Amino acid sequence: MPKISQKGLRMPASPIRKLTPFADKAKQDGKKVYHLNIGQPDIETPAGMLDAVKNIDFNIWAYTASEGTLSYRKKLAEYYNKLGYGIDTQDIIITTGGSEAITIAMMTCLDAGDEVIIPEPFYANYNGFASQGDVVVKPILSYIENDFALPPISEFEKLITDKTKAIIICNPNNPTGYLYTREELEALKTLCLKYDLYLLCDEAYREFCYDGREFISPMHLEGLENNVIVLDTVSKRYSACGARLGCIITKNKEVWTTALKFAQARLSPGMVEQIAGEAAVDTPESYFEMVNAEYKSRRDTLVNALNNMEGVFCPTPGGAFYIVARLPIDNADKFCQWLLESFEYNNQTVMLAPATGFYSTPGSGLNEVRLAYVLNNDDLKTAMVCLEEALKVYPGRTN
Amino acid sequence: MPKISQKGLRMPASPIRKLTPFADKAKQDGKKVYHLNIGQPDIETPAGMLDAVKNIDFNIWAYTASEGTLSYRKKLAEYYNKLGYGIDTQDIIITTGGSEAITIAMMTCLDAGDEVIIPEPFYANYNGFASQGDVVVKPILSYIENDFALPPISEFEKLITDKTKAIIICNPNNPTGYLYTREELEALKTLCLKYDLYLLCDEAYREFCYDGREFISPMHLEGLENNVIVLDTVSKRYSACGARLGCIITKNKEVWTTALKFAQARLSPGMVEQIAGEAAVDTPESYFEMVNAEYKSRRDTLVNALNNMEGVFCPTPGGAFYIVARLPIDNADKFCQWLLESFEYNNQTVMLAPATGFYSTPGSGLNEVRLAYVLNNDDLKTAMVCLEEALKVYPGRTN
Ligand SMILES: Cc1ncc(COP(=O)(O)O)c(C=O)c1O
Ligand SMILES: Cc1ncc(COP(=O)(O)O)c(C=O)c1O
Repeated sequence: MPKISQKGLRMPASPIRKLTPFADKAKQDGKKVYHLNIGQPDIETPAGMLDAVKNIDFNIWAYTASEGTLSYRKKLAEYYNKLGYGIDTQDIIITTGGSEAITIAMMTCLDAGDEVIIPEPFYANYNGFASQGDVVVKPILSYIENDFALPPISEFEKLITDKTKAIIICNPNNPTGYLYTREELEALKTLCLKYDLYLLCDEAYREFCYDGREFISPMHLEGLENNVIVLDTVSKRYSACGARLGCIITKNKEVWTTALKFAQARLSPGMVEQIAGEAAVDTPESYFEMVNAEYKSRRDTLVNALNNMEGVFCPTPGGAFYIVARLPIDNADKFCQWLLESFEYNNQTVMLAPATGFYSTPGSGLNEVRLAYVLNNDDLKTAMVCLEEALKVYPGRTN
Repeated sequence: MPKISQKGLRMPASPIRKLTPFADKAKQDGKKVYHLNIGQPDIETPAGMLDAVKNIDFNIWAYTASEGTLSYRKKLAEYYNKLGYGIDTQDIIITTGGSEAITIAMMTCLDAGDEVIIPEPFYANYNGFASQGDVVVKPILSYIENDFALPPISEFEKLITDKTKAIIICNPNNPTGYLYTREELEALKTLCLKYDLYLLCDEAYREFCYDGREFISPMHLEGLENNVIVLDTVSKRYSACGARLGCIITKNKEVWTTALKFAQARLSPGMVEQIAGEAAVDTPESYFEMVNAEYKSRRDTLVNALNNMEGVFCPTPGGAFYIVARLPIDNADKFCQWLLESFEYNNQTVMLAPATGFYSTPGSGLNEVRLAYVLNNDDLKTAMVCLEEALKVYPGRTN
């Protein structure tokens, strides 16, 4: 029998899906499971976007240009320029989701053996994308006590070697919800310029900022044009995860041209999705006001409930729709599995994501879980009651 | 300024797109350009597939399972089992086009530095996919005089080292249109079993076989279950290139499980496309009869016209919708550019793909071009008149 590649053997399985069999079993057993474990929003996709799909008007479902259709890129440039990015149609490459944007950007910037620094906890699939290119992830711890703010620049500098080629940040952050400040981004700018590093900025959750806080992108910083690559997606912005539509934005022409070669190899992003994406840019402001109000109120529900539980702590995140909470437990993986396998309260239980999956430093996140607030407030409240009860009886409780 | 990766620098630009600026210029100058250079069919997508898109009925455009929806995989299994593949829903992973199927299969089988043997000329993007994984392509020449049949197995054996992990074939072939025989596939089977090699079989053009010839897949061969990975796509089958919908099929569970990890990292294939793909499986037989009759007649138009031109030779390919022809020219790249830049006949010209882009052995294919028969018969005839006239006056004509 032929042998699987080492790359394939090393490739991490999705940490979030590890618990799926236990959730399936719980449901078979008749338990209601509240899913707070994944980033699939329950919010409706804007009608205009779905109507664009329903109204397609062509006879041949053809390839588009590898960089995406000109009309979609034009429309997107308008969207970004309203945000003050000052970009051009020629600075965009349309991708199959944010996932492909990240993969292509990494291949453009990093060779096998090169190093990328990522503040942790971080979006677990960055590990997978790095593995694909045999790229080495150098994690740098951020701390829950500190709201998961950017670690001090001196910590970054300690990790920099001649193999370091890039830094990845996710803003607002998945899994922590942390929203980076202008000062933090300025500090990263100085660092990237000093060491000639790329700054890959994953802005999947850009639209979701709370408490009147402003979203700042490295695109807003002058002098960093050659270093910044923004990675974006419509998945969360329009609750359109299944559209698989994202993009790479960079003003660095060499990066753009190189990324295009990778995009050409896979020929084209989806055609119908680009039509839908173009319509999505015209989504009324009221949609985002509604969605943001909803997410903010859910965040408050969770933060309040969690911080009111004995021995539980969580910061109040400024963005995205995730929270990382510290629980009085021995082991988050065991606890999350136990919730599904051995616990029920009124025949209900909760599915959470163990934070261990978001750390690559061994032993980190053992008493932390990530909660995605992708259920309505009532369900969230019930889920929090379940969690509180669970913590009372969990055999591995630590205090 | 940060440095582009070596991988990015090595990544080949799409050879087919190199001529695009010259085609654009020719059109600006008012010339009509007959496009025989790309594999974008002019055939209509089945109405049932487009209707499925127009009739979508959901409010949240959500992720699907990373391996694709169960209902689409069930439907696909039916389709493959009609072809005698004897597969199960659990042998399929849905991908974003055949392109992603190839990328994931390569990462699953090959590490950086590993070698894959591919008969050439071959689909140029295999080079790109190999570059992404720092995989080494070992080409093995097939010859136009021999209809581009499979090279002798002894030639394969000469190339096999302890780094050789896989063979890729494309059947029916792009660019040659060659349809492999059962004997050729049996010979590959013996070879793959002897040396424990994966056989990656790209069947993008499966539906297009002419002259009553039967399509044979390595899936039809007993005893090769652990070695075979079929790479498929709806792009050409249903003229739905812009759907970006393909799949990996393998009965090797370890391969399937490993490929799934790569699929999980990018989360999900497109949701709307899977709905459309499910509907596509019900496309009436009459559609394929119509399409095949059309392609066959176009093939005959081209083969006859080409072989009637002084100094031109082409085989009669058994499948796909491509022909590689040998022309009396010094250099195919120069010739194809000259056709766009400096030639016109009745204010018309032809865009062809230089075959050099499909060879990786330097100096090969210099007097060959690929023609895709994606225009109707009348246009093809006019295009062939243009080509004949062009060959009469081309300054680099060799005989
Ligand atoms: C931080 C982050 N980046 C990227 C992605 C990938 O999203 P997609 O490929 O759906 O665009 C996700 C999805 O959850 C994410 O959370
Ligand atoms: C031989 C072959 N394989 C794979 C592909 C990729 O097709 P897609 O990614 O559109 O499914 C093509 C497209 O032309 C092809 O010719």
